[in-house]
Amino acid sequence: MIIVEFSVVPIGRGESVSKYVAEAIKILENENIKYEVTPMGTIFETERLSYAFNIIEKAHEAVIRAGAKRVITSIKIDDRRDKERKMEDKVKSVLERLSVEK
Amino acid sequence: MIIVEFSVVPIGRGESVSKYVAEAIKILENENIKYEVTPMGTIFETERLSYAFNIIEKAHEAVIRAGAKRVITSIKIDDRRDKERKMEDKVKSVLERLSVEK
Amino acid sequence: MIIVEFSVVPIGRGESVSKYVAEAIKILENENIKYEVTPMGTIFETERLSYAFNIIEKAHEAVIRAGAKRVITSIKIDDRRDKERKMEDKVKSVLERLSVEK
Amino acid sequence: MIIVEFSVVPIGRGESVSKYVAEAIKILENENIKYEVTPMGTIFETERLSYAFNIIEKAHEAVIRAGAKRVITSIKIDDRRDKERKMEDKVKSVLERLSVEK
Repeated sequence: MIIVEFSVVPIGRGESVSKYVAEAIKILENENIKYEVTPMGTIFETERLSYAFNIIEKAHEAVIRAGAKRVITSIKIDDRRDKERKMEDKVKSVLERLSVEK
Repeated sequence: MIIVEFSVVPIGRGESVSKYVAEAIKILENENIKYEVTPMGTIFETERLSYAFNIIEKAHEAVIRAGAKRVITSIKIDDRRDKERKMEDKVKSVLERLSVEK
Repeated sequence: MIIVEFSVVPIGRGESVSKYVAEAIKILENENIKYEVTPMGTIFETERLSYAFNIIEKAHEAVIRAGAKRVITSIKIDDRRDKERKMEDKVKSVLERLSVEK
Repeated sequence: MIIVEFSVVPIGRGESVSKYVAEAIKILENENIKYEVTPMGTIFETERLSYAFNIIEKAHEAVIRAGAKRVITSIKIDDRRDKERKMEDKVKSVLERLSVEK
């Protein structure tokens, strides 16, 4: 399972960018995938990297279609092949260590 | 309010890094700040950039103290001066736009 | 023109990762594109986002084929539609401002 | 030796941001450190993480002083403790592998 975080930021369209970010997230809504909106980006999981890129490309283009003339898109991909794990497993395995040690 | 996302990744200590990441998060536990662990990093808010860097430096050093010989720390800082807003406000303003348009 | 920076980091294969990074850069060598290796990543320019993702996917897979069981790939895309500019233009426009003001 | 890449991007001040980026780089000019401007950021090396953060904080504040109301600063820190190496060593060790294998 590949876990992906990305953010699409329009440059030069004012300080408030939520209107544009919403356009990017609508792309995820229309796909049938599990995703999570955080204060700093959007995280989703997928089994195929090409699919992840396909979604992010659509999100990036959606922000341009909404009027942005310059867009900076940041992506972080965590691809682990030795072990099955999901988005929530990563958080759980860290938090469990914290509580065990308390 | 400054919103900060960061991750501290030990390189070369095996594929599983949650033991190290837990050490970084313990730093946040010991400070009296609001933070959120996501599948891809840790997000917190603060009013002072120097305080954010101080925390991240401690987290970075904690991972080295736990045995890492090489660490890559990624940080993203979103500093908005025209308007008061908190971590949860960023998510809310995007999600509200989505539901309004449905 | 889209300017892209990316890095592919194998996690858990030792502190030295240049063997793996070289595999990623070989992908760029085999494509006919302009690229630049920096101490922190690889930068290239392209006119199509899908092509950029195609190259990065190949680079990511090359590192896994070289033996990595976990890979973190970071990508930053700067896509500007209002103006033609190349990789070197971005550096030049900043450096010119510095020298003008001196 | 710690190698650091960072970029400071003003949001909402127009598509062209080189005026602001130049303010950030002036901070590095005034410090006595080795740095490199790339098309996607600025890279420098230092022996102390606290010094790196001090410089980046000044660069971030310089962009706000220049008029930005919202700034996104991205930082990547590569801290290797098992081995002495400099900015240029990282590039060299990758490029050498490429030419050996040709």
